Amino acid sequence: MAMEAKEPSKTQGKPIRCKAAVCRKAGEPLVIEEVIVAPPRPREVRIRVICTSLCHSDITFWKLQVPPAICPRILGHEAIGIVESVGENVDEVAEGDVVLPTFLPDCGECTDCKSKKSNLCSKFPFEVSPCMPRYHDSRFTDLNGEVLHHFLFVSSFSKYTVVDVANITKVDPAIPPNRACLLSCGVSTGVGAAWRTAGVEPGSTVAIFGLGAIGLAVAEGARLCGATRIIGVDLNPEKFELGKKFGVTDFVNSANCGDKSVSQVIKEMTDGGADYCFECVGMASLVHEAYACCRKGWGKTIVLGVDKPGTMLSLSSSEVLHSGKSLMGSLFGGIKAKTDIPVLLKRYMDKELRLDEFVTHEVKFEEINEAFNLLLEGKCLRCTMYVGYRWLKTSEYATRNQPTASLIVIALKCCKHVVP
Amino acid sequence: MAMEAKEPSKTQGKPIRCKAAVCRKAGEPLVIEEVIVAPPRPREVRIRVICTSLCHSDITFWKLQVPPAICPRILGHEAIGIVESVGENVDEVAEGDVVLPTFLPDCGECTDCKSKKSNLCSKFPFEVSPCMPRYHDSRFTDLNGEVLHHFLFVSSFSKYTVVDVANITKVDPAIPPNRACLLSCGVSTGVGAAWRTAGVEPGSTVAIFGLGAIGLAVAEGARLCGATRIIGVDLNPEKFELGKKFGVTDFVNSANCGDKSVSQVIKEMTDGGADYCFECVGMASLVHEAYACCRKGWGKTIVLGVDKPGTMLSLSSSEVLHSGKSLMGSLFGGIKAKTDIPVLLKRYMDKELRLDEFVTHEVKFEEINEAFNLLLEGKCLRCTMYVGYRWLKTSEYATRNQPTASLIVIALKCCKHVVP
Ligand SMILES: NC(=O)c1ccc[n+]([C@@H]2O[C@H](COP(=O)([O-])OP(=O)(O)OC[C@H]3O[C@@H](n4cnc5c(N)ncnc54)[C@H](O)[C@@H]3O)[C@@H](O)[C@H]2O)c1
Ligand SMILES: NC(=O)c1ccc[n+]([C@@H]2O[C@H](COP(=O)([O-])OP(=O)(O)OC[C@H]3O[C@@H](n4cnc5c(N)ncnc54)[C@H](O)[C@@H]3O)[C@@H](O)[C@H]2O)c1
Ligand SMILES: [Zn+2]
Ligand SMILES: [Zn+2]
Ligand SMILES: [Zn+2]
Ligand SMILES: [Zn+2]
Repeated sequence: MAMEAKEPSKTQGKPIRCKAAVCRKAGEPLVIEEVIVAPPRPREVRIRVICTSLCHSDITFWKLQVPPAICPRILGHEAIGIVESVGENVDEVAEGDVVLPTFLPDCGECTDCKSKKSNLCSKFPFEVSPCMPRYHDSRFTDLNGEVLHHFLFVSSFSKYTVVDVANITKVDPAIPPNRACLLSCGVSTGVGAAWRTAGVEPGSTVAIFGLGAIGLAVAEGARLCGATRIIGVDLNPEKFELGKKFGVTDFVNSANCGDKSVSQVIKEMTDGGADYCFECVGMASLVHEAYACCRKGWGKTIVLGVDKPGTMLSLSSSEVLHSGKSLMGSLFGGIKAKTDIPVLLKRYMDKELRLDEFVTHEVKFEEINEAFNLLLEGKCLRCTMYVGYRWLKTSEYATRNQPTASLIVIALKCCKHVVP
Repeated sequence: MAMEAKEPSKTQGKPIRCKAAVCRKAGEPLVIEEVIVAPPRPREVRIRVICTSLCHSDITFWKLQVPPAICPRILGHEAIGIVESVGENVDEVAEGDVVLPTFLPDCGECTDCKSKKSNLCSKFPFEVSPCMPRYHDSRFTDLNGEVLHHFLFVSSFSKYTVVDVANITKVDPAIPPNRACLLSCGVSTGVGAAWRTAGVEPGSTVAIFGLGAIGLAVAEGARLCGATRIIGVDLNPEKFELGKKFGVTDFVNSANCGDKSVSQVIKEMTDGGADYCFECVGMASLVHEAYACCRKGWGKTIVLGVDKPGTMLSLSSSEVLHSGKSLMGSLFGGIKAKTDIPVLLKRYMDKELRLDEFVTHEVKFEEINEAFNLLLEGKCLRCTMYVGYRWLKTSEYATRNQPTASLIVIALKCCKHVVP
């Protein structure tokens, strides 16, 4: 690891050679290998990933055999890191800052980023791209010089990664990194969908299809918005036990509705339908069920799940007209990264927002394929992995109180729980 | 016309024999014939129709060869009338009151009617039913005793009709009946869609697909809400001239977009899309176009047009997720008949809301098939027909200042412009 110097000044402007988990072939185990991470170009930031977690979107695009899934690529988009160096014209963050990379940019300049009504940057329109957003190229190569593609503008399954400054939110370093990273995608998405996209009102009834981290974060958001009834739908009964921790009040096992459809069951339970239905699996048929059991007159169905490219949703024209229901999507929960993530972090620090309960597993970065298995088998909500640093136990922290190496200083200053 | 006495006391509780335009066979000219109108059952009201107009929904169901279109039936649902008699337990209106029948009920008792968020009564759920809403039967027979079906709970193409009290809104008799009748369906629907369903904000850009009465009423509603740009789409250029009267600022001829789609043209005109798109034709393909050109991030597509039963709308799952747009239907413009119609009437009387400009034609009731032709050929917005009364010119009115027959008294007291 000759190139991976501890002194920031030594790596700035230079390629870094480091460990990454590369997806060489769709659906096959990731390969831990050494890669070269180019320095950031203007308005880009290179970060050393503290830790990353695994979101179902990683799995969806890992499985996918067709574009926009292109191999070889570096997956991962739910993470936290420390700025190693910045490219030209970056003044928002500096070396040593703790940042959350987010797949959705917040450029701060375009109509959408300036509007309260949208979180869909028009300067860097969202797409499942294999490239960096600003220059449409890659910062990764393998040791043979082959280009490795990016994923969702984050690619956090690497010790170092390069992210556009539009996709970076500076955060309070006091928050434990293996909690904060969840706000980089999953928990922000779910909480935001209830809070920002749907605007759940006090006293509402909410139905959530899929009780993974996204679905349970919707439950958390709905609870914070004052929903009084939160119905969770899943086919994995283990999720019902987990759901109780997140204030889910009722459970429907979709594999076990007899001769009724899930929507019928929910309509009966709620005397006509839920005020808000959230699809958090990624299946068109569940969007149809969600739409069917949201309350006529005012019900909203919010699509969060990512289905296969090309999938169509099919609604009866007369039902759309006659029902008064609305259908909408929610990318990143309608969250505007740079303004909303700090609010959510504060709510966590104030013990209002739950994050700890989402982290059900932790594995070593080298065991990342185990994290895939855990999520695929429905055994975990979020599995975190320390990548470029490791967690510092309190006892350990005490003995390191006089650190010498400068990166340790940065690490301790910025994020008091990790060491390189 | 022996049974059609002038004294209310003579007809109350008895069947009335009167003239109606009967749809005997789908798509064939209506037949003017004598029919028998049974007295109102409890919570029903029998009205003498002052005048009716023709809405495209009458045409759609007149053309339709399959259920829910059932012949023989009496069409018509945009009207105004005077209460001839009431059934038991009706205290909301009394003989002589001027009322607007509406296809959407407002029972005042159910969760929806009591809620500010819905106009979809759950006591009498909307359906295109051939019957009365409360008893699921008919009040019409022909002279051979054959049952004639109802249409949209109104059936105003008859001198007398029976309507449930939930479908009746009492109105200020000072308003000219051939204006007020438009608020019984078309204008309320269009204005309401902008005002109630979409909540158009000042400064918004609105695109309207179809510049019939519904579409131009949307324009009127959008103007009242402060929209600054109103784009009208039609394939009939005559509608563009008409549209100017309603504040439509830009026109797109959908038959004339070259190799571009309408949505592309509108996206270019608006630098990304309209804030609100309204489909006012009744074609799935136009809903798709409307959705495609509503602004990502916050755009709303509102479906008003009535398509053939069984038509499906098909949206790309990833577009729904990635675009942040919403899709919703608007039945009767989200208007709650008994509270909102009086507000709209007042705005007309205060010269804020346009109604006069919608009435482009008037024909004799006996010439109703001509009204169908005019609307089918795109020559009119609304064609009104006096049915059970006739319009009183000012000069005529002066000479009738001392009426003797009691129904004239009622008519003059309640609606100063008509005579039996
Ligand atoms: N909209 C966004 O911005 C955004 C962000 C992150 C994730 N996502 C998407 O959200 C979805 C959920 O992600 P996650 O990380 O919570 O995944 P997850 O795997 O943790 O959870 C999915 C849950 O759905 C359940 N499920 C599967 N099939 C089901 C069925 N037929 N009926 C009911 N439940 C079923 C599973 O048992 C599991 O509990 C994924 O599609 C992911 O790609 C969207
Ligand atoms: N949602 C409701 O509660 C409600 C109430 C009343 C009417 N409606 C429906 O609204 C629709 C409009 O009713 P209306 O009375 O205004 O009808 P209309 O016939 O007066 O107007 C329809 C307009 O659409 C235009 N048009 C037709 N095909 C077109 C195309 N391919 N592209 C662009 N424009 C096209 C016509 O030229 C015409 O100007 C109908 O479907 C009617 O059933 C709905
Ligand atoms: Zn994610
Ligand atoms: Zn932006
Ligand atoms: Zn109508
Ligand atoms: Zn009701």
